[in-house]
Amino acid sequence: MISVQEAEEIILSQVRDYGVEEIPFEAAFGRVLAQDIRCDRDLPAYNRVTMDGIAVSYASIEQGVTAFRIRATQAAGDEPIEIDELTDCIEIMTGAAQPITADTVIPYEQITIDNGIATLATSTIKMGQNIHFKGRDRKQNDIVTPFNSLIDAAVINIAATVGKVTMAVRTRPRILIVSTGDELVEVDETPADYQLRRSNSFSIQAVLQQHALEADMLHLPDEPFTIENEITEALNEYDVLIFSGGVSAGKYDHVPKVLEEVGVHQLFHKIKQRPGKPFWFGAHDDGQLVFAFPGNPVSAFMCLHRYFVPWYKRTMGMADDRKIYGVLNDDVTFTPALQYYMQVSLDFNEQGQIVATPLQGNGSGDLANLLESDAFMELPADKSEFKKGEVYRIWVFKNVLQ
Amino acid sequence: MISVQEAEEIILSQVRDYGVEEIPFEAAFGRVLAQDIRCDRDLPAYNRVTMDGIAVSYASIEQGVTAFRIRATQAAGDEPIEIDELTDCIEIMTGAAQPITADTVIPYEQITIDNGIATLATSTIKMGQNIHFKGRDRKQNDIVTPFNSLIDAAVINIAATVGKVTMAVRTRPRILIVSTGDELVEVDETPADYQLRRSNSFSIQAVLQQHALEADMLHLPDEPFTIENEITEALNEYDVLIFSGGVSAGKYDHVPKVLEEVGVHQLFHKIKQRPGKPFWFGAHDDGQLVFAFPGNPVSAFMCLHRYFVPWYKRTMGMADDRKIYGVLNDDVTFTPALQYYMQVSLDFNEQGQIVATPLQGNGSGDLANLLESDAFMELPADKSEFKKGEVYRIWVFKNVLQ
Repeated sequence: MISVQEAEEIILSQVRDYGVEEIPFEAAFGRVLAQDIRCDRDLPAYNRVTMDGIAVSYASIEQGVTAFRIRATQAAGDEPIEIDELTDCIEIMTGAAQPITADTVIPYEQITIDNGIATLATSTIKMGQNIHFKGRDRKQNDIVTPFNSLIDAAVINIAATVGKVTMAVRTRPRILIVSTGDELVEVDETPADYQLRRSNSFSIQAVLQQHALEADMLHLPDEPFTIENEITEALNEYDVLIFSGGVSAGKYDHVPKVLEEVGVHQLFHKIKQRPGKPFWFGAHDDGQLVFAFPGNPVSAFMCLHRYFVPWYKRTMGMADDRKIYGVLNDDVTFTPALQYYMQVSLDFNEQGQIVATPLQGNGSGDLANLLESDAFMELPADKSEFKKGEVYRIWVFKNVLQ
Repeated sequence: MISVQEAEEIILSQVRDYGVEEIPFEAAFGRVLAQDIRCDRDLPAYNRVTMDGIAVSYASIEQGVTAFRIRATQAAGDEPIEIDELTDCIEIMTGAAQPITADTVIPYEQITIDNGIATLATSTIKMGQNIHFKGRDRKQNDIVTPFNSLIDAAVINIAATVGKVTMAVRTRPRILIVSTGDELVEVDETPADYQLRRSNSFSIQAVLQQHALEADMLHLPDEPFTIENEITEALNEYDVLIFSGGVSAGKYDHVPKVLEEVGVHQLFHKIKQRPGKPFWFGAHDDGQLVFAFPGNPVSAFMCLHRYFVPWYKRTMGMADDRKIYGVLNDDVTFTPALQYYMQVSLDFNEQGQIVATPLQGNGSGDLANLLESDAFMELPADKSEFKKGEVYRIWVFKNVLQ
């Protein structure tokens, strides 16, 4: 049995490169950039007016001009208009390009307009005011979003802004979610008293969906010959197999043995943790990876977030590795020499802290508790008493910030 | 001009009821429950064995029996087997139902098996050990997920577990994203020096997508007659119109006037905030709502998160109203009498705090800054000096926890 840290190291050493593909920018939300996005022009692309009002030449202000003849009106999207007299102005709108011969914008709130003449109602005017100057934010060819960035809504906006109709993104692994266990029936069936419905595959799929990942599903009976055939086929079609069930010490836990037989070498089996102790992890010589989680719903859920998601982020080259910490809100005793992933709900206090309140269930099997939890708090294996107010790392699985 | 708090109050007073629809549970991720999910059976549904090993009757332990004849093997999903002698046991697997005449499970690690006889290698055995008892977590008919819950991966799992093949969820508003402004060209076009590409609609759509919302898009020229026709049509087909652009004080900002003409009554125009001051909000007598944000990308982005998303959550009946706070990581001066939504990046320290570092851009127009920000920090309008270490509310727009 290895430690959580050893397991993490082994998994993160198995990063893969699934290549790059070019996709439309609107379809790229949640994907990972495989190229830098650069400015096609300066940002802003022109001296951009930021208030509605009049544009004048500052030289006229210096010369004491206080009334201006409105020569024309220039809207956003209009070609810039020229003025040639210091007593002329352009009525101008937010978003318009600065007229070539004007350099200062005075907002409507600071003028009066009568009979085509704009008269100043202020004496505090600064040269260049209310203009967002060309190239002030970024220069042409500057990188605005680097390689390996997660493509979020802001990146989508900048992609549109710089005209990236398609973008190179990292190709995702082809994933198969495999459930095992003869005690499982389908969701639309009525289980016997000693049976359960198949549920883990659906929650695993939902978590993958949060990370813009797609996955197929397969259910296997507890029958070695069928398992072997199906896994052999799956290894031809998928890059990653995520199992739930079939990895305990039981007589019918055929999965590890069959995986070895079809060339998936065990990299570890069992981690000093609760839940999720029987987690089996292996790799095929051809590169395919197998995350075989325990069948218990909470165990599978925890292992998915604690091991698969970080592997996926590392494989995609995502740079973000911020660790999150929470303040324990109750005393907890946990004596087994295992790293304990305790279910907690999160609150946010006015000291800017994340407060984690334990929702201790009836062992790892308590799926109902998971519904009220937001995160797992990682309590180290080498301690057994955890005090209110102490701070530990948390692994958040609910989107509590948005 | 009204305050942020007044604007929020007005918007949240305009909640709507778009009804309820029944959808397959696998398609419900991100939607909001419009019914309670109840247990169809107890949870667990049977006395569930949690370790691989042997099942015995505790009476035999009390009588000092230390060796048991293995009568049969019972896997998960097998019908429970009976034993009738105190010296008998069943070899049993995780997930199996407790045999009727056995009540205690001893794991493989604590026995030796030889020639069909299991001999105890431990003397500390508790009655009922390693069995997760029927109904321990929830009873039949108990509510596991209440009405108005956001459907996340854990809810998907419980829905599958209790056999909810379809679920009643709240119907979403039909949303149209409307861009305006003659300075805008399409993403695949090359803008002139005084033009920009249309980008806000795409980032608005991406944010809606994060909330499992779909939206169509429309672009309108700065031409009142066309705007009027198109809006009239849109009001027949959509529940919510989200505008970006056309709401400043400019001559060509036709949107507020046209909206009034087609029966969308202004509920407010302009908020004491930066960015996003020109935000216009209105409602039609028939219930349609119009969120008309400024055209500036950062303004539109901020208003969407600060006003639309809370309105949507309230409308869906979502109960979660946790406020998030961050610790300001730098001194900031902001003198205008406006509530300032400052772009910040977030970190997490080992005191369990969320630390917010200002990324002060070149005014609200600095889209490039948004890429490096995770949240807006809400700095109150009635102060102008904000000190490092002070705590303020934050509005997080990036999924930094997962």
